[in-house]
Order: sequence, then C-alpha cells, then structure tokens
Amino acid sequence: MRKTDVLVVGGCAAGIVAATTGKSNNPDKSFLVVRKEEKVLVPCGIPYIFGSLESSDKNVIPAEALFERMGIDLLIGEVISIDKDNKTCQMADGEIIGYDKLVLATGSTPSVPQWLKGRDLENVFVVPKDKVYLDRVLDNLNGCNKVVVVGAGFIGVELSDELKKKGKDVVLVELMDHILGMAFDQDIAIRAQGELESRGVTLKLGSGIKEIQGDGKVSSVVLGNGETLDADAVILSMGYRPNIELAKTADVRISKLGFFAVDEYMRTDEPDIFAVGDCAEKRDCITHKDSPVMLASVACAEARVAGMNLYKLSTLKTIHGTIAIFATVVGDIAFGAAGVTEKIAQQEGFDIIVGEFEGVDKHPGSLEGTSKQLVKLIVSRESGVVLGGEIVGGQSVGELINVLGVAIQNAMTVYSLLTLQIGTHPLLTAAPTAYPLIKAAEVAMRKLQK
Amino acid sequence: MRKTDVLVVGGCAAGIVAATTGKSNNPDKSFLVVRKEEKVLVPCGIPYIFGSLESSDKNVIPAEALFERMGIDLLIGEVISIDKDNKTCQMADGEIIGYDKLVLATGSTPSVPQWLKGRDLENVFVVPKDKVYLDRVLDNLNGCNKVVVVGAGFIGVELSDELKKKGKDVVLVELMDHILGMAFDQDIAIRAQGELESRGVTLKLGSGIKEIQGDGKVSSVVLGNGETLDADAVILSMGYRPNIELAKTADVRISKLGFFAVDEYMRTDEPDIFAVGDCAEKRDCITHKDSPVMLASVACAEARVAGMNLYKLSTLKTIHGTIAIFATVVGDIAFGAAGVTEKIAQQEGFDIIVGEFEGVDKHPGSLEGTSKQLVKLIVSRESGVVLGGEIVGGQSVGELINVLGVAIQNAMTVYSLLTLQIGTHPLLTAAPTAYPLIKAAEVAMRKLQK
Repeated sequence: MRKTDVLVVGGCAAGIVAATTGKSNNPDKSFLVVRKEEKVLVPCGIPYIFGSLESSDKNVIPAEALFERMGIDLLIGEVISIDKDNKTCQMADGEIIGYDKLVLATGSTPSVPQWLKGRDLENVFVVPKDKVYLDRVLDNLNGCNKVVVVGAGFIGVELSDELKKKGKDVVLVELMDHILGMAFDQDIAIRAQGELESRGVTLKLGSGIKEIQGDGKVSSVVLGNGETLDADAVILSMGYRPNIELAKTADVRISKLGFFAVDEYMRTDEPDIFAVGDCAEKRDCITHKDSPVMLASVACAEARVAGMNLYKLSTLKTIHGTIAIFATVVGDIAFGAAGVTEKIAQQEGFDIIVGEFEGVDKHPGSLEGTSKQLVKLIVSRESGVVLGGEIVGGQSVGELINVLGVAIQNAMTVYSLLTLQIGTHPLLTAAPTAYPLIKAAEVAMRKLQK
Repeated sequence: MRKTDVLVVGGCAAGIVAATTGKSNNPDKSFLVVRKEEKVLVPCGIPYIFGSLESSDKNVIPAEALFERMGIDLLIGEVISIDKDNKTCQMADGEIIGYDKLVLATGSTPSVPQWLKGRDLENVFVVPKDKVYLDRVLDNLNGCNKVVVVGAGFIGVELSDELKKKGKDVVLVELMDHILGMAFDQDIAIRAQGELESRGVTLKLGSGIKEIQGDGKVSSVVLGNGETLDADAVILSMGYRPNIELAKTADVRISKLGFFAVDEYMRTDEPDIFAVGDCAEKRDCITHKDSPVMLASVACAEARVAGMNLYKLSTLKTIHGTIAIFATVVGDIAFGAAGVTEKIAQQEGFDIIVGEFEGVDKHPGSLEGTSKQLVKLIVSRESGVVLGGEIVGGQSVGELINVLGVAIQNAMTVYSLLTLQIGTHPLLTAAPTAYPLIKAAEVAMRKLQK
C-alpha cells in the first residue's frame, strides 16, 4: 500500500496552495496530490481562453514543475472513497493510499437544473475547469455564430464579452433584473450592462431560461417570458455545486448549503481531514451566515490556513469569516466589490448609510488613459464600520478593491478612512485631493452626522 | 477691515483640502483662501508638463469652481504677517484680514545650496509649484538640447524620464550611490536605474554637483569628482524647504527640522492657528522621529484632519504619525514604497527580517501586458509587524502599495497577511496562488520561524 503523510485530493488552486504551503511548513513530511486532470487550468482565466488567450494551452498552471521543485508527489487519478478509520483512500483503479492528514480540495462542478429541457442537446455546454472538455467546446464554437449564454454571474459576463471579441453574435440571459447580482447593486451593475451592450452583447434580463429546443443539436432557446432566441450554441453558466460525493464514504459532516463543514482551521468534524476551496463551507464575515461564494482567491486563503495548521495549530492562522472580494473587467471598465452590497445589507437587517463619490483615476484628468472612478461605500450607521463597497473605474480597480478589502478585514470605520494616508501618483492613481475612496467616506460621514 | 471665520493661507493641495473639508464640516462659517498664484498646479503632475502633458495648462487644479460651488472665498495675494493677539493677517498690499481660525498651508520652495557657484546663471532652473515660472522654464528648454538634472529624488527622476521623451539629451546627477534614496533600498532602486538608462538617460551617481559654469548663460556642470558635463540647461531638484517665514511675525513654534510644529490635530502652539502640508511638522509613524517627507498625499490627509478639527475636536480624526507612501513610474515600470526601507530600519536599530517574492501582475502570465511584480517586505522580527515594503511592477503598483500602506497603518503582522483575503482577476492582478504580497509574507514568516 502506498503511504503519504499528507494526501491532497484535488489539484486546482486550493489543492496546489494547500500542498505547497503544507510542504513549506512541514518539509520533513511527504505530500501527495491526487487529481483527475492531466493539466490544470488557471480557474479565473477560463473565460479568457474563449477570446484574449485564444487557447487553453496558455491558461495552464505549471503545477508539475512547482511540485517537483518542492518535492511534492503528483498522481493523476480519482479518489473514489475514504476509509477514515484506517486512514486510507481508494483510487478508481483500485489502488489504496494511506494518509496521516487528508485535505479535500475537490472543487465544484457546473450545476444545471434537472428541469431544464434540452440540456443534453448537442452544442449545449457548461463551463467546468476541465481542459479536455473546454478544448472541445472551443472547437465546436468555431462553427457557431449565434451563442446564447445563460446566467450573468462573473463567468457568464466575462465569457459573453470574450465571445463578442471573437465576432460571435452573443445574447446573455439572466433571471435577475440585473447582471452580476451576487456582487453588485443594481446602480453599479447597470454600468457594466451599458458597457456590455455598447460592445454588442444583447442582454435579456428579468426572465430566465425555460427550455432549450433542437433536433439533436440546439437550434433555439425559449425564455420564461415566451421569447424564442435562435442559437447555434448555448453556454450554461448557472452556478456551481461543491463536489462533496466523497463525504458519503467518509461520513464527513456537510453544511446546510451542502459544503464540507469546516472550522476556522479548515478542519472537518473528522480528525485529520481538512477541506478547502469551493467544496468547503464558508461563513460571511459581515453577515455571519453561510455563504455560497466560490472564488479562487478565497480558496487560496483557506488552503494557506489548512497548510499552516496541518500538524500544529496556530491561533494566528485562521479564517474568521469569508470576505468575498470580486473584480472583473467589461470592455475597458473594471468593476470591483468587497463585503456586502447595499441590497444584502438591507435584507440582513443592517442599519446602513451609503457614501458615494465619482472622480477620475489619474491626475490631472487630462492625462491619456484617464478613466472615471466611482466608489460606493456601505457603512453601518451606529458603529461607522465599513461593511462593503463597490468600485467602477480603470485597471487600478483590481488592487483598489483590495485596499477596501483590507480596510474591511481590519474593521475600519469611515472615520479611520477619513484620516487614511494613501500614496498617489499622476499616472497611477486618483489625486490626493479627490481620492474617491476617501471622498466617499466623507460623504458617508456627513450622513452619519445628520 | 475684512473679516472671515477661517483664513487659509496657501491654495495648493493642502490649502484646498483644508478649506473644503473645513467648510463641509462648518457650513455656517465663512472661509477665505489667500494664495499668491493666479492658477494652481497639480503638484505631483509638474514633472509631466515637461513631457506627457506638453503644457502646464493641462495640469491646473480647477479650485476656483470648487470654491465657488462650496461658498469659499478666494483672494489672490500674499499674507506677509500675522498679528496673533488681534487675530489678523496683513497682506502685501496693506489690507488687514481678521480671522477666527487660521490655517497655514504655505507649502515649500526649492532649496539650492548657497555654496553652489553658478546657481544664478541663465538657464539654471529649479522646480517650484509656480505656473508662471514653470511656463518660462518650458519655453527656455525648447531651445536646449543638453539638460543636466541635479538630484535624483522623485522630481528629478520623473523629470529626466519626461525630458528624454521630448528628445533631450539628459544627464541625471545624484550625490548618493543610487537614485530615489529616500524611498527605496539600493536593490530596488537599481531596477529603476536600469530602466532610466535603457531609455537613454545618463546617470552620474555617487558624486554630486560642485559648481555650474558659464558666461552669463550656463555652459557646463562640474561634478564633485572633477568630471565636466556640457549643459544647455541645468535643473536643480535638490530638495525643498518649508515656507515658514510667517512664523517670525507670529512667534509660532518651529520644529527641529524647521517646520511649523504641530500636534495630532495639526494645531500649532498658538491657539487657533493650524498648519498643514509641506510647511507642517511630521513624525514618522514607524521611527517616531521627525520626518522631512513632503508629499501631496500626506498634505491632504493632514488638511482633512485640520478641516475636521477646526471648531471642535474629534479624537477619531487625528494624524498619529506620518507614513510616507510613494509611487512613481520609470519608463513602463512602476515603483511603490510604504513605511521604512530596510536600510532605514537598520539605521534606526530595528531588529528586522526581509521577505521578498517576485511573480507576475496578471494571470496567466501569458496575457498581453503582463509585467513582473516584486514585493519586498521589511518586518519586525519580534512582533512580526510589517514596518515597510517596496514594490516593483506594472501600473497596478499604484494601488497595491496602498494595500500595503493600509496594512501598515493597521499594524498588521506577517501572520495576518498570510491569511489575508484578497480579490484577484486575470487581467487586473497577480494570481491568488502566487500573489506576491502574500508570498513575500510567507518568505518572511519562514525566516521568523528559524
């Protein structure tokens, strides 16, 4: 029987980081990563293989070289069951692998509603992290002109933008009345919608998909409102479900939302079994409710925590609640969000005020490449604590949303934002006199004083 | 006699923000800003009027419109003395203005050593915030090919890069053995030097200027090592001194380094007189020593604090030590620094370790426009607290250095950086698996554990 000190099941972002962090912290332990895929894709890069990158080969994580350099073993195959009493896993080919610590990083799978008629027609696709499957999708899309994308989360929106770049005729269908509903309020999402539409993507909002029609191959999509859209291909980006099938064999506790239940050290309720990434339970750091968020950045933070706590616990290295920090690009405009939206804050019963300011992201604004920059802050009225924020602007939004994310993780108030010292540069940031993050805090403070 | 509730002396960044913040917080008070300049320039944009912007007209702060909208009065003129007992100021034209609160935002002036022979020759320039003067410099430079820039701080470096863009033959002279010595350690500065040199700027390091020669007009520059450089023009960017002449008339206390001495509310030792910006004393938040730093971003933070504490104090709105956060661009590479450098930390007696990681700023790295991204962290060995950091990379460095700046202002440790949750996006940031800021913290932690 093969034996390893630490067995990591899953080799995408979470699995890689759990293994490498674990090995760095425990160089004397043996680590084995088992994954199904020959090659692993950069998860967030997947929409871009449909346009900017032109191929999935440019979107591969070179994990093999990293593992080899660090002395981490890799096995391509599938773990199909866990024997927690004997601390072994069984592979699909029958091999048994003994472990001392087990890390489940099994990820997630596109979920398609069972009721959706026509889901199995030819040229109806989903967006898994499976390179072989995605290469086939890319191949098939070559012959397609009219593409209907269903579900306007980040994947659906980025995919639509990329497919349009390749000259496809793209319709994006969303059940909610605005796109990116998980991360953005409607007032912000509308800007992304405008940008998508100006680039030629057709939006169908407020009426989800009813069925997919076709004879063998897809030919059209029927919406909830009865409208029929011609389609050469349909891409369903309607959400993902955590891969927790292994729980059945190991009797690991499952959370209410269907993830492996974990504590702050990313331990399941079974001794020596950890879970990280899309398959692991998350609790929102603001609402303190279960969170269905699946983000590679969150997965990596969890994986670091697991890797650092495998053999001895550190009370410094824990996840005390998940903060979802999102960023995306639509056309030339970047969008970022951190913490809760105004809508979610209200739904959850927070007494909030909102501060908003729009400026520009270089100074003077006459510099080439200057974009508008809008910052919206959601603030707890009583404490002044910043609960969330949304930012629209140029490329710098990607790190500016992390400035806000770090502020939220430190439970900073609008008062501390007001006196925050920042660095500025004409070509790189907004002006110090009108830095939108601080100006939005000023607007919020003014409302707090009333 | 003219009377105003709040009199702000100086109309650049600090004066503007002190007046607008003050007015927002005290809408029933009258505010008057007195400044010498007809038009006010974006201070950090000044080097760019020599290249990218092509003219100073594109670098003007539209303060007049802002003041008018907010009901702030503006007077062009010069305050020449303060009568603190009668709470009045006298203007150069003899007018007396009474005030209730006085804010000194008098800024700074280029300093040129008295011993420097030839400093008054024709075509020897400095870089003040004076539009009329700078327009004349621009005019005169039109006829010059060989330009020697003396002093390789941010102004000198940015100016050299911009003049080179305009086709000038540029030599940059610096007394220290590397450029940008105030903000960066040599190992990082070397990268900026390489970039400047690859763009055709000639560097003369480790040997300052001895004298400027010429007959009426400058013709050459002699360095400390005896070398002589031909020069059609010389630009001296050798530092700035605070404008504190008014102190003589009001007997306001002056700090050891020669600034208006202030407390955490930006109050001088005279009741009802505040000072903010380049003319005001700063204490470094890490070393807790007097700091000579002059940054528009710091000035604006101070001005906000003064504006919010004019009529009633808020213990939440204070400056508890200055953190200098710098950013600049050389060629296509951006450089950022926050807190102390490794060298300064060592000089000050900190027991430190350094964590460094180099990755890329998009993911996958095959995406167009990907730059390398290097993060260097300076960490207190005993506490794990991050004392400073330096970053080299693409455009996102401008806000990424603010992520680090906010972390330092929250006294975050490497341990909290390890579990930091960040947002990532292929086109906007490094990968979540190899986010250099967190990887550098891992490297530092590993050293702490030894």
